[in-house]
Amino acid sequence: MLMVHKFGGTSLADTQKICNAAARVVETKRQGNSVLVVVSAMDDTTDKLIKLAGEITDVPSTREMDVLLSTGEQVSAALLAMAISDFGEQAVSLTGSQVGIATDDCHGDARITRINPTRLHKELEAGHIPVVTGFQGISDTGAITTLGRGGSDTTAVALAAAVHADLCEIFTDVEGIYTTDPWMVPEARKLESISYDEMLVLASLGAGVLQPQSVKFAKKHNIKLHVRSSFTHKPGTIVQGAEPVQKGVSISGIAYDLNVANLLLYVFPNDMLIYNKIFDSLVAHGITADIITHSTTRNNINGVSIVITKDNLQKALRALQGLEEVSLNENFFYNENVAKVSIVGSGHLADSQVMGKVFQAITEVGSNVQMISTTEIWMSCIVDVDKVKDIVRIIHNKLQLGHG
Amino acid sequence: MLMVHKFGGTSLADTQKICNAAARVVETKRQGNSVLVVVSAMDDTTDKLIKLAGEITDVPSTREMDVLLSTGEQVSAALLAMAISDFGEQAVSLTGSQVGIATDDCHGDARITRINPTRLHKELEAGHIPVVTGFQGISDTGAITTLGRGGSDTTAVALAAAVHADLCEIFTDVEGIYTTDPWMVPEARKLESISYDEMLVLASLGAGVLQPQSVKFAKKHNIKLHVRSSFTHKPGTIVQGAEPVQKGVSISGIAYDLNVANLLLYVFPNDMLIYNKIFDSLVAHGITADIITHSTTRNNINGVSIVITKDNLQKALRALQGLEEVSLNENFFYNENVAKVSIVGSGHLADSQVMGKVFQAITEVGSNVQMISTTEIWMSCIVDVDKVKDIVRIIHNKLQLGHG
Repeated sequence: MLMVHKFGGTSLADTQKICNAAARVVETKRQGNSVLVVVSAMDDTTDKLIKLAGEITDVPSTREMDVLLSTGEQVSAALLAMAISDFGEQAVSLTGSQVGIATDDCHGDARITRINPTRLHKELEAGHIPVVTGFQGISDTGAITTLGRGGSDTTAVALAAAVHADLCEIFTDVEGIYTTDPWMVPEARKLESISYDEMLVLASLGAGVLQPQSVKFAKKHNIKLHVRSSFTHKPGTIVQGAEPVQKGVSISGIAYDLNVANLLLYVFPNDMLIYNKIFDSLVAHGITADIITHSTTRNNINGVSIVITKDNLQKALRALQGLEEVSLNENFFYNENVAKVSIVGSGHLADSQVMGKVFQAITEVGSNVQMISTTEIWMSCIVDVDKVKDIVRIIHNKLQLGHG
Repeated sequence: MLMVHKFGGTSLADTQKICNAAARVVETKRQGNSVLVVVSAMDDTTDKLIKLAGEITDVPSTREMDVLLSTGEQVSAALLAMAISDFGEQAVSLTGSQVGIATDDCHGDARITRINPTRLHKELEAGHIPVVTGFQGISDTGAITTLGRGGSDTTAVALAAAVHADLCEIFTDVEGIYTTDPWMVPEARKLESISYDEMLVLASLGAGVLQPQSVKFAKKHNIKLHVRSSFTHKPGTIVQGAEPVQKGVSISGIAYDLNVANLLLYVFPNDMLIYNKIFDSLVAHGITADIITHSTTRNNINGVSIVITKDNLQKALRALQGLEEVSLNENFFYNENVAKVSIVGSGHLADSQVMGKVFQAITEVGSNVQMISTTEIWMSCIVDVDKVKDIVRIIHNKLQLGHG
């Protein structure tokens, strides 16, 4: 079999763990497989580099951030290649540029446009183990680009597609995909398998194990994923296939996302044209709004709430304060002490008892729902960040997700 | 003027120093110059990376070491480019590969074979400030290579030659070239100027301020160098021109080198063929012998001493212990607790009183000369490493180098 092994930052947190990962790769290779490895940066390397940039400027050039951050994966690729070679197999580290991972030029959030698998095939045919830096590529002008947080998953799946791998194993610090975060809710249950679509929704709503883009890629190219722990040999969760046909409401899990912030603006009815300006300005600055709600208060004042990622908050504030209508409006607020809790499943969630249980849970912990957004297959609430753990645990219990 | 500014690791040790370096670059630019910047890795980054590799394997692949170490300069280039942009000038970081710095494939000690200045000219003509990673290039097969310790100086001078710069300023943590290390001997005197040849000898013998290869390059292309402190605006030392014609003995300085180790082998006269094998084996492993001395003891036993860099010691030991004649010889020793002290000047040093003063100094501190090697323009002694500071200070005083 031709296998892709992807190791996340926690699986490469120190040199001991890098040696463990190397042992894992060598074991797979010696079972008669060809192995292609994709690595993330060691543990908190990326955060440390971001901190360095933050000491220099509040508004780092996105091009230079990519040059900076891409070094993290280069370090882990070199170290893992050394460790594999120390076990007696031939490994060769390759950067995104060396592999030929072409992307668009959207620095910090680039999309892979094509991959030239020639070099990889050459190394694999020679019996070598290529160790490729995840998360990064090269633009048409030769600039280093990065794919955004968690982009190494996308690299792994895209390379698996490019070389027609039989299986893409994502090694991480949890044993698979759970009904919710097992660090937060001990009763969380590991799923044996999950469809691409369910996984995509879970991932999109903040289940940190896989990046949504990687799941889309896997679905499109029909790449079988195996999400598993690098610290045990237990089977993890297989991601493949279509959504199971089920009657009624079925919940696959609860995701939460701490990387959110909320913008709030109250305006008089005749000022509503400002909405266009706000969204135009956000789009022009590359900021995607997640949930948007609009309401009219008793005083006939319109309120709009916009959820964005916390990473984008400073950029959004600068963009919006450049608009006179916002900078002169005393009723513009933002809140970064929020989190998004999402219940993912199928059936009409909003019509079911699920919503009632969610409100019960939020009331029980003394929080309130600041925003709510529902579709047929998920329901997201914005809640106080310091209550998120209790809310998730109580919803998980009320929906009896621990029982399988 | 077209200026090259090269910043060493101590000038980029933290983000505050990176901002200072950026201010320096911006100042030069705003005086009406074009500026091209070359950077080393931040302070002890390279040592930290070497330590990581050492935790994984005793014999890291030299190819992978280059992939690992080259990240250090990439981090400082990105951060410095951000800092310059924060001052309002347009900077763009470029890796060795992006600039087109082609090298041979001698990983860890590569030589620059050619530079394609197209990209640099394009950026300079647009009024941008290119910030180039020092120390690294790319081989003909596309692999990342490094130039060896201090290689950023060579990058700076080679780029200065490639773009026909008017001046190459080397910013460091000392105020110029001194008669000896000013950290070690407070009486050391700063030289206003020094010829390429004198500088080359000083650098070759361990004066750490400039890498010898960079001085050779500067001489060949007649690049005027200015070695100066990044922390003051005082003029430093100009390196240019030919050696001054002087009568008699003239001493330009005292260099020392802690990165040395000594190999010792005693053999019977009829075993001397082993010498060939030893030197063949060292050459085959890319290890250059620095000083070699040979002596015959009273018992008619031949002793050979070979000085190599301490960095190469483990590699040399493995190479030599692979030779049966060495591994079976009980009289094979090595010593890493040594240092090399070199007196550099012109005239017949060995015939002069200089040698006597050197022996006096070594005797005064209770050390002994383990090896000595002289030419017309320098004299090197191998001494105990823990006595090196006292020896250098006493020789400096005895030769009255502090008086100009």
